[in-house]
Amino acid sequence: MEGDPTLQLRVFDLNCWAIRYLSKRRQERVQLIGDTLRREGFDLVLLQEVWSERDYSDLKVKLGGCYPFSHYFRSGVIGSGLCVFSRFPILDTLLYQYSLNGYPYMLQHGDWFCGKSVGLVVIKISGIVFNVYVTHLHAEYCREKDAYLPHRLVQAWELAQFIRHTSKAADVVVLGGDLNMHPEDVGIRLLRGWTGLRDAFAEATRFEGCEDGCTLVPDNCFTVNSELLPFPLGIRIDYILYKAVSSFTVKCEELKTTTGTAPGMDIPFSDHEAVMATLHIRRQEQAAGDTLSTVEPTLADVVTEARTEVGVGLRAARRQRYSAGRMAVLALLLLLLQAAAALGALAGLADGQPFPKLSFCLLAFLALGILLLATGLHLFHTMEVKMLQGTEDQMRMALRALQERP
Amino acid sequence: MEGDPTLQLRVFDLNCWAIRYLSKRRQERVQLIGDTLRREGFDLVLLQEVWSERDYSDLKVKLGGCYPFSHYFRSGVIGSGLCVFSRFPILDTLLYQYSLNGYPYMLQHGDWFCGKSVGLVVIKISGIVFNVYVTHLHAEYCREKDAYLPHRLVQAWELAQFIRHTSKAADVVVLGGDLNMHPEDVGIRLLRGWTGLRDAFAEATRFEGCEDGCTLVPDNCFTVNSELLPFPLGIRIDYILYKAVSSFTVKCEELKTTTGTAPGMDIPFSDHEAVMATLHIRRQEQAAGDTLSTVEPTLADVVTEARTEVGVGLRAARRQRYSAGRMAVLALLLLLLQAAAALGALAGLADGQPFPKLSFCLLAFLALGILLLATGLHLFHTMEVKMLQGTEDQMRMALRALQERP
Repeated sequence: MEGDPTLQLRVFDLNCWAIRYLSKRRQERVQLIGDTLRREGFDLVLLQEVWSERDYSDLKVKLGGCYPFSHYFRSGVIGSGLCVFSRFPILDTLLYQYSLNGYPYMLQHGDWFCGKSVGLVVIKISGIVFNVYVTHLHAEYCREKDAYLPHRLVQAWELAQFIRHTSKAADVVVLGGDLNMHPEDVGIRLLRGWTGLRDAFAEATRFEGCEDGCTLVPDNCFTVNSELLPFPLGIRIDYILYKAVSSFTVKCEELKTTTGTAPGMDIPFSDHEAVMATLHIRRQEQAAGDTLSTVEPTLADVVTEARTEVGVGLRAARRQRYSAGRMAVLALLLLLLQAAAALGALAGLADGQPFPKLSFCLLAFLALGILLLATGLHLFHTMEVKMLQGTEDQMRMALRALQERP
Repeated sequence: MEGDPTLQLRVFDLNCWAIRYLSKRRQERVQLIGDTLRREGFDLVLLQEVWSERDYSDLKVKLGGCYPFSHYFRSGVIGSGLCVFSRFPILDTLLYQYSLNGYPYMLQHGDWFCGKSVGLVVIKISGIVFNVYVTHLHAEYCREKDAYLPHRLVQAWELAQFIRHTSKAADVVVLGGDLNMHPEDVGIRLLRGWTGLRDAFAEATRFEGCEDGCTLVPDNCFTVNSELLPFPLGIRIDYILYKAVSSFTVKCEELKTTTGTAPGMDIPFSDHEAVMATLHIRRQEQAAGDTLSTVEPTLADVVTEARTEVGVGLRAARRQRYSAGRMAVLALLLLLLQAAAALGALAGLADGQPFPKLSFCLLAFLALGILLLATGLHLFHTMEVKMLQGTEDQMRMALRALQERP
């Protein structure tokens, strides 16, 4: 930095769609990703959906020469899928698992099993401390009736809070990941407003890639076009965001995305497009102003909007908790009734058994099954209510703080 | 600070043992705690095991006059039980839920349901930023054969990492809570060594209270003396720890504990003794040296020791995952066999049903029950393995960093 006042950082971000047994042509694509990364020599590589640790190890071996430092974040049943490769030493890491992440019984969606998280790695380049975050938020399966919106908003809020609290001593913050939110969605506005992060796509001096920076596009052969339907030209849900915390400035000189296929190949890296940013970091004479203050007037509205959505989720969770509890009580009553009938029969109060033995047993097992299931659901939704309430509380506190500022 | 160079901070810490329906004389004790806190006028109050939100609300109403700022941390099924009351405005909060916290099927221990966490509140007094942490780690039920040691060590490690990453911009760090570890236990040494936190009891200029600062003592009428047995004089598991991060010094002028009963009363606040510290904070001319460096030579040994224990837990978790998986496969095989037999009977391959219908159905239900339970257990232990592996990885990285330092 002393000699050359500008540090250049080239960042690569990709949701790899590398689900064992499920993702098409996975091994071929992981190999292709590895080859490209080795050839291109980025400074930082932020990957999501590397669900198989074997894939990570293979990449680590292949990339050992140009990216000697790496970290895989473990969480959930399958793993967080998050990993980082770096040209510079990773000094420290931390994982924060989001408190809400869908429902375990929504097996067809499976997000719950991934233990969605945000991973932090700290690196230092030429004396500048970089806090680099990689994350993947809950997927959106139906935009019109998005049952997971409250959970995704809780995640966006926790992500913002985690970044704010952990980046206070960092000079530069970089966040890459599949946020599963469109640029104008309330979650993105909340995340950007509450952290002061800037969107590399919006700030880039030069852009090259899919129209509007889209990262899920119809030109990608793995895209199911019907899933894009309300947006036939594609959507942008993968981001590189950044900010300078102390007396530095960051500028995005160039942003690129792949355009349906990997460069020079006939297959894509993934069902998502890769996002590649070239950031220029400069030390500036006077310290940067608080980026929060410039967006504050609208920030209170954004927090209010997010809080309203979390409130909607809270009411739904309370209803589900109530239904599950009622079901458990009914099943328990049925079991008690059956126990009374069985005891009565044993004590000779009734002439013989009122039911045939088989149906009686089947009914008892059914009631027991429902009791266990409903109790489990009740506990799960109780936790959901607690976390939604907690987030709503925090947002209310944030609003008060925003309103009290001059 | 400008006029008076020393800031005095009086901190109160207590595990309240306020479990609805289970804790003896709960309401009376919560009232007593509230009365004492109002009378004594501490600056900061850190409470654990306030499981009922009603108790928190009652305390909040009662203490509104002298502690106008408070926060209750929600998590898990029951709630984290953590809350903070403060004389000074709470500027921000963050909750970190530990990734491991016992087993849901250990109903008699129940820790899993509490969503054990660490809560952070940020306050500013006379321009000094305080990061105040409150936590409660997994209980120790059997010291000789402590099955929860690896989980508690993961919690201690996550607590240390969380404090390190979130306190970089703080001037003073204060941690209060029931750590469920004796002062010489590896978890405490890890936490203190890795964060540089100092133990108020060890550093206090004046001490008044139970011998050796014990917080579980035989003089407390709620203590089950047999549970203390290897330590008939009591144990110390509740702590106030602190450090100055930047150019400040903190000194513990006085440490007190209650001694079996609340001051001037005939019943105790709780089954734990309260810990009360008076801290003196001074701005110093030259910045404080890195507290880590002074303890470093032994720190590597402590991390190694902790890593070994986590490794023991990892092997146990792998064994349990394997057993649960094998059980699930066996139950599935039995179900498939039964299905084949039933299909055979339906297709008329066998002369009549080989089993009586009732036993056949009972067996099928049993197999189904075992299949579901074993699958659930397998998933749970898979997550446990992931988190233990992740912690081991982080500890290995920390060790390398320690060894590479000159």
